[in-house]
Amino acid sequence: MLYLDDLHIGQRFKSGTHTIDAVEIKAFARQFDPQPFHLDDGAAKDTIFSGLAASGWHTAAITMRLLVDSGLPLAGGIVGAGGEIAWPKPTRPGDTLQVESEVMDITPSRSRPDRGTVTVRSVTRNQKNEVVQELKARLIVPRRV
Amino acid sequence: MLYLDDLHIGQRFKSGTHTIDAVEIKAFARQFDPQPFHLDDGAAKDTIFSGLAASGWHTAAITMRLLVDSGLPLAGGIVGAGGEIAWPKPTRPGDTLQVESEVMDITPSRSRPDRGTVTVRSVTRNQKNEVVQELKARLIVPRRV
Repeated sequence: MLYLDDLHIGQRFKSGTHTIDAVEIKAFARQFDPQPFHLDDGAAKDTIFSGLAASGWHTAAITMRLLVDSGLPLAGGIVGAGGEIAWPKPTRPGDTLQVESEVMDITPSRSRPDRGTVTVRSVTRNQKNEVVQELKARLIVPRRV
Repeated sequence: MLYLDDLHIGQRFKSGTHTIDAVEIKAFARQFDPQPFHLDDGAAKDTIFSGLAASGWHTAAITMRLLVDSGLPLAGGIVGAGGEIAWPKPTRPGDTLQVESEVMDITPSRSRPDRGTVTVRSVTRNQKNEVVQELKARLIVPRRV
């Protein structure tokens, strides 16, 4: 597991994969984002998505799972203070997602010598290498003390 | 339901509420963010959260549900292209969340006369009026045609 002191700008990590199906897409949507384009294949055809698509928050949640399981081995876990997120393309049933992360910035805390903030850019791609999510997250990372 | 043409900068919306419990926090974490501070009350005590806390993505997902159910009546649904997110405080078991949204910016599309982009700031607060999430989202909103 990596501490702030072990990280350098440009360092890269690659996660395992997760293949999503329509059952998962609809189950997440029923709970958190019950809109026709996430719930029903037929109704989704006549929407801006032109077919069933995962909620962006579902793509974000799957990305987090991939990062926690295999994508970003940080000491203290993956603790986000916030960030920027974009969904250039929707996640579709049958898509296989994988996350590549890169350390963009490392800032030791001035007030708390035991930690710092690391900006990590995590790009989630499908099996066609299309970007379905780009996340620039500010993470709290402990220092070796 | 509101089209781009019906919106104005400064327009505000308030959602219903959702009270979250430890069972929900752990169930979401098992599926999407299996880290000790989201899974186990005892283990969470010795972490940066000093107790069980919901995944930030869980707070985001609940916020989305509140917006879809009652918080943002947009024609065509709530379709996000991306945005900025921050979690100033964690969501805790027993918290009652509510979302207040404000239209920040309205930009008709130059290339597509049937739609535009609206920036909406959605602030999620707990029952103590503490902000647990701030989201500035870029939404695709249809025009009346």
